[in-house]
Amino acid sequence: MALWFEEIASPNHRLGWKVRRVLADEVSPYQRIQVVETEQFGHALVLDGILQTTEGDEFIYHEMLAHVALTTHPSPRRVLIVGGGDGGTAREVLRAPATEEVVLAEIDRRVVEMSRTYLPGHTVGLDDPRLRLEITDGAKFVEAQSAAFDVILVDATDPDGSGPGRALYTEAFHRALRKALRPGGLYVQHAGAPFYNPEVLRGVSESAAQVFPLVRVFTAPIPTYPGAYFSFVIGSLGPDPVAPAASFVPEGALWYTPAMHRAAFVLPPYVLRLLPLSVQIRAEDSGLTRSVLPGGLPA
Amino acid sequence: MALWFEEIASPNHRLGWKVRRVLADEVSPYQRIQVVETEQFGHALVLDGILQTTEGDEFIYHEMLAHVALTTHPSPRRVLIVGGGDGGTAREVLRAPATEEVVLAEIDRRVVEMSRTYLPGHTVGLDDPRLRLEITDGAKFVEAQSAAFDVILVDATDPDGSGPGRALYTEAFHRALRKALRPGGLYVQHAGAPFYNPEVLRGVSESAAQVFPLVRVFTAPIPTYPGAYFSFVIGSLGPDPVAPAASFVPEGALWYTPAMHRAAFVLPPYVLRLLPLSVQIRAEDSGLTRSVLPGGLPA
Repeated sequence: MALWFEEIASPNHRLGWKVRRVLADEVSPYQRIQVVETEQFGHALVLDGILQTTEGDEFIYHEMLAHVALTTHPSPRRVLIVGGGDGGTAREVLRAPATEEVVLAEIDRRVVEMSRTYLPGHTVGLDDPRLRLEITDGAKFVEAQSAAFDVILVDATDPDGSGPGRALYTEAFHRALRKALRPGGLYVQHAGAPFYNPEVLRGVSESAAQVFPLVRVFTAPIPTYPGAYFSFVIGSLGPDPVAPAASFVPEGALWYTPAMHRAAFVLPPYVLRLLPLSVQIRAEDSGLTRSVLPGGLPA
Repeated sequence: MALWFEEIASPNHRLGWKVRRVLADEVSPYQRIQVVETEQFGHALVLDGILQTTEGDEFIYHEMLAHVALTTHPSPRRVLIVGGGDGGTAREVLRAPATEEVVLAEIDRRVVEMSRTYLPGHTVGLDDPRLRLEITDGAKFVEAQSAAFDVILVDATDPDGSGPGRALYTEAFHRALRKALRPGGLYVQHAGAPFYNPEVLRGVSESAAQVFPLVRVFTAPIPTYPGAYFSFVIGSLGPDPVAPAASFVPEGALWYTPAMHRAAFVLPPYVLRLLPLSVQIRAEDSGLTRSVLPGGLPA
């Protein structure tokens, strides 16, 4: 019997992965959690039908989510991860030499437990003494903080899903993030695939730009996310992430390098046109000409 | 009735696109040719079941295939396109100011005719007086040339398909390309998605490096190609494409800019490890450290 996991990525597009077997399938108080063993990318965690992370390509997302901010901040000692229950982001943060304390604020205990069982490569950092796991609502946790973290990494489900991630894409949340950061701090958040969810990138960058004095967008291709060309929004109270302060390269990194960091901020006109003007103009500093703007999207 | 076009991208992965209707479906002497109207990306050309190009995302592939070489060469007057019957690459070449003559060597007349009907945005250049359409076997056409072209763009089907593109990924073809180029000339060829077909990128770059004094690899994300993160091999008898000579920016380009050009050559360790040593070392010039090499692929 040939088993396929099929993700209904959008009303117009779907992705199928050949599956050896279903390793787990349960419903937590927050979402349906499944783990499948894919032929292409090994074990994959699926929440409410949406593939979140696989053993085979997770390094791209986790290295870029963590190290762009961590190399920009001159001394990122205290780091908060909102979501990220699979452990992959925490593992990367713990590789950074400045890290003294990581708080992992995950709402769903079962995501952490199932990741420990089925994604051991992701969860290697969860027993590190510098890490504190808080099973809690990440949005509320952030609201309760003041000037507490150097870097906050938002590692949540998509805003259009039915899961608990929706609250993490609002301006209220961005204001809470700013308050929770120490002076000079940075936050990062994924903002979907520009081809499929341009409104997510536009909305997140617009909201962040209302709150943070400096907002930039960077991208990375992620084979298991629909549209694959994936965007991240970074807000800074201090240094400009385009020019990282540290030349730290994580040992054994498969994606992140200082050169990849800089290249990730170079945006094509297609993406620039999606951004609010304040972010567009900054993006142009990285080498784009004014002449391509403004303009509509292709049909 | 919900219609879906499903591409069996690999034994382990498939991509589905919601289809409004099938516009054409016929068998030529060379391949099965279908045109479907997708919800996501408009009209799409499908050859032997593999999606080749869509109206909605074609600009990425065609702009990068054409303009990286055309801006590297100081005076690319005569350009050959091998394959490319949909016209998209020719359209881009004709936008470059130096272009005096373009030869489009397409084996399958029906691809050109059906593209004229269903992909009018692709074929706008086909009646340009600078363009000469040759319905011919591209590999044989190249073999018959000596020092005839400044730039050759190989715009063919995949090497693993059943179609006529297979002959264009061999060392014999690379030797013929070199002979067909004028002094200082460049050639470009796509080399698959490193995640799904690492052997294609390795094979093409290895073969090209046997023949061309300078070979580099660049990438672009293409949403409708499986794996999306797509690679190109460029071989040069003259200038290094990492540092383009011209600052020409195609009017209305949605993807190509000089900054995107430079960023496209920055490769992650994951891809570097796939390349033969001669190409790896050159790639490192663009900012990568030796320490990540050599090494195996992740499981």
